[in-house]
Amino acid sequence: MDTAYQPTARTTPTRYRERAHYDRRTIHDILDEALICHLGYSSAGRPVVLPTTHARLDEALYLHGSTGGGPLLAAKAAQASGSGLPVCVTITLVDGLVLARSAMHHSVNFRSVVVVGDARVVDDPAEKSRALSCLLDHIAPGRAADCRAPDARELAATGVLALDLVEVSAKVRSGPPADDPQDLPLPHWAGVVPLSLTAGPPVPADDLDPGVALPRYLAG
Amino acid sequence: MDTAYQPTARTTPTRYRERAHYDRRTIHDILDEALICHLGYSSAGRPVVLPTTHARLDEALYLHGSTGGGPLLAAKAAQASGSGLPVCVTITLVDGLVLARSAMHHSVNFRSVVVVGDARVVDDPAEKSRALSCLLDHIAPGRAADCRAPDARELAATGVLALDLVEVSAKVRSGPPADDPQDLPLPHWAGVVPLSLTAGPPVPADDLDPGVALPRYLAG
Repeated sequence: MDTAYQPTARTTPTRYRERAHYDRRTIHDILDEALICHLGYSSAGRPVVLPTTHARLDEALYLHGSTGGGPLLAAKAAQASGSGLPVCVTITLVDGLVLARSAMHHSVNFRSVVVVGDARVVDDPAEKSRALSCLLDHIAPGRAADCRAPDARELAATGVLALDLVEVSAKVRSGPPADDPQDLPLPHWAGVVPLSLTAGPPVPADDLDPGVALPRYLAG
Repeated sequence: MDTAYQPTARTTPTRYRERAHYDRRTIHDILDEALICHLGYSSAGRPVVLPTTHARLDEALYLHGSTGGGPLLAAKAAQASGSGLPVCVTITLVDGLVLARSAMHHSVNFRSVVVVGDARVVDDPAEKSRALSCLLDHIAPGRAADCRAPDARELAATGVLALDLVEVSAKVRSGPPADDPQDLPLPHWAGVVPLSLTAGPPVPADDLDPGVALPRYLAG
């Protein structure tokens, strides 16, 4: 397999092209680190963007939701007319605020991935079950094996979408501000405020049996 | 002014309606706390979702970008044909992972806002300047007055979009997992892993004059 995705017109940014990346490692790492994505699709001719969780399995991105929710209904309607649902799934990690001497060069350090394509509804029970396990393990590796698996009614109420990783790009900005040389002597603080999503100590449910210990995959 | 936005078909979720909120305070607080949004629009009939910064000023949400970038070009094209650009701007704060005994009830604690409407290009120089100041103050309150203002060339290269807060909703999930009663005795840990975006100590640029102190709006 190629080590990089092939850029297309849709995955080539119009601005800051030097920030674009197509190598699989960079893109997979961002997809795997991020807890949520933003799913874009069209409904009645208008854009809709919804936050949702995702998980990558090899070269597929899986999303899930209620079979009665907007994205799944739209995907089923597309499928009924023989196609996938045109989507754009965007994942963004915010790494810092970039403060420059000039207003113009203020920025955000970030790592984002944009996946475009036609999402399909996962009908195969084995693939669906695998995808749901991945979605659980994505938020806490090992969790899928340590909870009650969905029963038939729950599976029927849950839809899974798959989006093949074909048209994919990352965009990354890191490092200090890039002020113009003539602005360097200005008396304004310049630098980066690092930001990261940080986990606090797990809070057990009030009704948790005190005999149930915190699992290793949540410790630290 | 009403204390709440009026729900519409587009801002009424199909699922978990009890999580929907329309009061201005809740919505403004989410918009003001979040550092980035995801902007959705259509390009050549397909959805596009891009991360970008935003700022709220009263009842308008401002976004900005290069005049040569996709969203600004699309908005200008829409304006040329006499309309705004149909957009969906979604803002999401992730507050925690929710681990339930059952796979089905796993969730994420979050606060999100969806704004739909037709974005307009801000042509008025005073409004544009105000919007750009708000965008700076949004990332660090006080910053707009403590940096070099954009010059004419920079202003010409920067486009601003405004989206009136009219069709807006928030969705909030908080608190512990909601397991079904029959699952409570299961031997799986249940609870919440709190998450928050945390700032580290500011990192001055290598070329920062050591005489320039860290401004108060960045301390703590």
